[in-house]
Order: sequence, then structure tokens, then C-alpha cells
Amino acid sequence: MPALIECVPNISEGRRLDVVNQIVEAVKATPGLKWLDQTSDPDHNRSVLTFLGEPAVLKAALDTLFTEVSKHIDLTTHQGGHPRMGAVDVVPFIPIADCTMADCVALAKDVAKLVAEKFNVPVVLYEEAASAPHRKNLADVRKGQFEGLQDKLAKPEWAPDFGNNYPHPHLGATAIGAREALIAYNVYLHTSDLKIANEIAKAVRGSSGGMAYVKGMGLYTEERNQVQVSMNLVNYKKNPIYRVFELIKIEAARWGVQVAGSEIVGLVPQDALLETAAYYLQVEGYNPAMVLENKIRTTA
Amino acid sequence: MPALIECVPNISEGRRLDVVNQIVEAVKATPGLKWLDQTSDPDHNRSVLTFLGEPAVLKAALDTLFTEVSKHIDLTTHQGGHPRMGAVDVVPFIPIADCTMADCVALAKDVAKLVAEKFNVPVVLYEEAASAPHRKNLADVRKGQFEGLQDKLAKPEWAPDFGNNYPHPHLGATAIGAREALIAYNVYLHTSDLKIANEIAKAVRGSSGGMAYVKGMGLYTEERNQVQVSMNLVNYKKNPIYRVFELIKIEAARWGVQVAGSEIVGLVPQDALLETAAYYLQVEGYNPAMVLENKIRTTA
Repeated sequence: MPALIECVPNISEGRRLDVVNQIVEAVKATPGLKWLDQTSDPDHNRSVLTFLGEPAVLKAALDTLFTEVSKHIDLTTHQGGHPRMGAVDVVPFIPIADCTMADCVALAKDVAKLVAEKFNVPVVLYEEAASAPHRKNLADVRKGQFEGLQDKLAKPEWAPDFGNNYPHPHLGATAIGAREALIAYNVYLHTSDLKIANEIAKAVRGSSGGMAYVKGMGLYTEERNQVQVSMNLVNYKKNPIYRVFELIKIEAARWGVQVAGSEIVGLVPQDALLETAAYYLQVEGYNPAMVLENKIRTTA
Repeated sequence: MPALIECVPNISEGRRLDVVNQIVEAVKATPGLKWLDQTSDPDHNRSVLTFLGEPAVLKAALDTLFTEVSKHIDLTTHQGGHPRMGAVDVVPFIPIADCTMADCVALAKDVAKLVAEKFNVPVVLYEEAASAPHRKNLADVRKGQFEGLQDKLAKPEWAPDFGNNYPHPHLGATAIGAREALIAYNVYLHTSDLKIANEIAKAVRGSSGGMAYVKGMGLYTEERNQVQVSMNLVNYKKNPIYRVFELIKIEAARWGVQVAGSEIVGLVPQDALLETAAYYLQVEGYNPAMVLENKIRTTA
């Protein structure tokens, strides 16, 4: 099977939907591309595109994306609520099937070279593709935004991995990287007390002492009159869903609160759920080749 | 996507491996067929073949199977430990992807017609394809075996669904049907007391009052000095793995015995594990389209 990689580019246009649609239609026409989703946010003034393909297909799709974006988006006049440094702001590659993270890093570098050489857009590699630890975190890479790029890219520690040490006049710079799929996962509690959800979120998320690769906050939902712990699991392989879920139950017990239910926002990679089933069923020596469909897929 | 159906024919030869291999090689050569497994048992004098394909591909493979078997297997001289009524004894079809049980029933009838008309082998449809409730259970269909066929097929209640009311001279008759995938699942207990495993098996299996679609018995394993509840879950959609597993834990608690682990023998359909994960994580409104790989598969 050829490598199947997901790509989720974010572009800095979420208001002029005719422009976004024109860009999307051009990218969609890439032979071999599987289109999954398009979401535009006018407040953020940003659109998130989601598609899949083999490396060569994705490279062709991104070539088209930059060609179209360079015609229509000018960051010198761009305003919006979401931080951004490029017209094509960020391009993450995510391993889905028959490939490794290393394949995604290689593709990130290959596309970065194309973007720098063909479009004169400097590229900083991030996350798994980062060339130094301080360049891993996208928020750090993007700090200072488009307006601060001229100064930032001139500093040795922020010199682009590909392209010039100064931004493209209207396209800025692009962060290209590789990362695991993230799971947006919310756990509802049998209480309306937001303080409890916030305390649990604090106990569970990595930034305040809980679990690595977990981001989270408490939220109150009017509709249910319940609170939720709203999370992004940014590496479900290193901290699987079941471990996060069980920790939430343990922390909720301090207030005598039960879990009401949970929800998966968007899509979840199947191995995240398969591993979860293997954990709860105590399956010894579980491996994905035990799953009929995986066996079928890997059988000639 | 074309319908993907699994077929697990059992043939009445498990000793002359040269003969089995000759038959297998011919069937394997069917264009479009995905071969999964071949197991021969000399005590049973029987071989189990497992392969996959679209309906037309499976029909062609079974045409070849009957052609080859009719050259090499003669039930008038066959001896073995496993009940059998045909040289090709039983042919189950199992829905795997992009098809329903009704598609498998339709295929069973289509193949049954071919077998009766081209090979003069009478066919009794069983399980989901059965033409009457008393003909559902394979053990009932096969009762009396090859030696009793002449009398049995002449009875109105056992008249074949396709073909003559008397057996083929050396090929007997064949049971062709459709059923859900079955999961062979064993749960180990932290005890060496076989009585406990037997009591739990009795409490859990449908034949003695437990759960429908669960077959089970206690077994002692020398290697681990532990007992296991050894099961076949013959319809994991109606009684999912997690429900059976949790009932075993509940019954084991009566003796203060903990579950040591579990094992899946052979292959498990992915939706059996996905549903299990959704149960334990309390995912609200779970449906298979939430799974990234399913979404990919159903996206053009």
C-alpha cells in the first residue's frame, strides 16, 4: 500500500468565501487527492482545509494551494482574531496508514524546499520536523506574527530552514511540520459547577502538572446544565484516551462527581479506539494485526 | 466500494496434504481473490479455508473448489473425527465491508444454485440463509452425516433448497449459509480450579441460561497453571465482547477470583473493538463514521 498522509493547511482567509472556494476547487482537482473537510471562520479570518493522499499527490496539491493563495491573499491588509504569519500559515502532515512520522518529516522538508524555491516564501519547520527544540512549538514559531517577521527571521535562532532570511512581501512565511493526529475529546460531568471542571482540567493537562500531550480546560454547557472537561489529546500514542479518561474519573471522585458521558469532536484514528478496547478487555499481546480489517488490508 | 465478503469453506480432507494443497492452489488462482488462511487437521480429517472477495469472485472460487474437490475427495471412503455430510461440507458467507447480511444470503442462494445444477450436489441453506427455523443450526442440518443422507434428504422437512432429494454418490450434500463473523475469545482467571471456570462458562453461555450467541467451556492450561473460560461469540453485534467480559468478572467475583487477562484467537472484526472502546469511554452518539479510517474509506 502507498503511504497515506493527512494534511491540514490553514490559510489566512475566512471571510471572502468566493475566494476560499476558488482556492479549494483548484486544490480538490489534484489527481489522487481525497478531500475530507473545509471550515472557514470569519472571526478568525482563517480557513482550515483537510485532505489526504500519497506524498507526491500532497506535494502537487500544495503547489496548487500556494499558486492560488498567492493570487488572492495579501497579508499586508489581513485582519483577524487568530495569530498568523503567512497567507498559507501552517501546513502539518500527519501519518495515517502505511507510513511513519519520519515519512511525514521527509515530506515536510520536500514541500518546504518547493515553497521556498518556487514561491519565495521562507519556511520554518516545526513539531516533529523542527530543526531545534525551541522551534517545535507552533505558538513560539508564530510569535510576533506577520508584522514581526522581518526582525524575527533575521535572528540566527529563527533563520528559516528553507528560503530567504526575510518574509515574502504579501505571503509572509509558512510553518511546515509533522505531527500525530490530535483527538478533540470532551468529558461531561454530572455537575453544573464549573470550578470542578476547571480543577479537573488543571489536574489532567500537561501544562499544569498532569499528563503530557494533553491540553484541557473546563467549560459550562447551558444546553445540558453540565460542565465538561474539554481537551485536545495531541499525542494519543504516548497518552492514550483510556488513561486520560480514567484519570478524569479519579480526579472527579474527589468531589463525588460521576462522568455523565464523553464526546469525540470530529474524527478519531481507529487505533486510538482499538488500543482502548484492548486495555479494558485486558487482551494479552494485543497487536493491530489481530484485527480482521487490518489483516485484509495487509494481505495481497 | 464493492461488497467484501468472507468465505470459510470446510472440506473433508485433512490428511492427504498434497491433495489439499492442489485444491488450495487452484482456488487461490481465482482472479481478485484475497487468500487469508488454510488449516488442516488430520484427526478431524478436515481442512478449513478462509478467503475474501466480491460476490462474483467468491462464486468463481467456489466453482473451482467444487471442481477440484470432486476429482479428489470421495466420502464413501472418508473417515475422521468431525461430523460431515459433504466433500465440501459447509460454506458460510460472512459480511465484512460495504455489504449486508442480505447480500450474503443472496450470494449463498446463488452459489447453491450453481452447486446443485453444475455439480449435482444437493444444498441445504443454513443460519441466516435457512428456509425454515429448524434448518438454521448447522449441527441439526448435518445430523445423520453422509451415511444418513439418503434417508434424510427424502424427508419433506429436510428436502434440499437446491438440487435432488438424494445425495451425490461421492460428494454427499453441502450446507451453504450466511452468518456473522465469530470471535474466538478466552478469558484467563487467577485460579487453577477448573470447577470455577466451568461454573462461569455455564453462567455465561446461552445453552445453559446465560447469554445468547455465546458458546463456552472451562479449560485448564498447564503452561500458566490457570483456567480459562474458552468461548465462541457467534454474534458480537447482539452480544458484544464487553458485555460478555463484564459478566465473566461479575460471576468470577462470587469466588473472589480476578481476571488475569484475555486472548483473541485468530482475527477480530474491528467494529467489535470500536464498540467496546465506545462503551468503556461512555462516548455519546458513537457511530463508526467518527473513525478517521472509516471516513476515508467512504470518501471518494
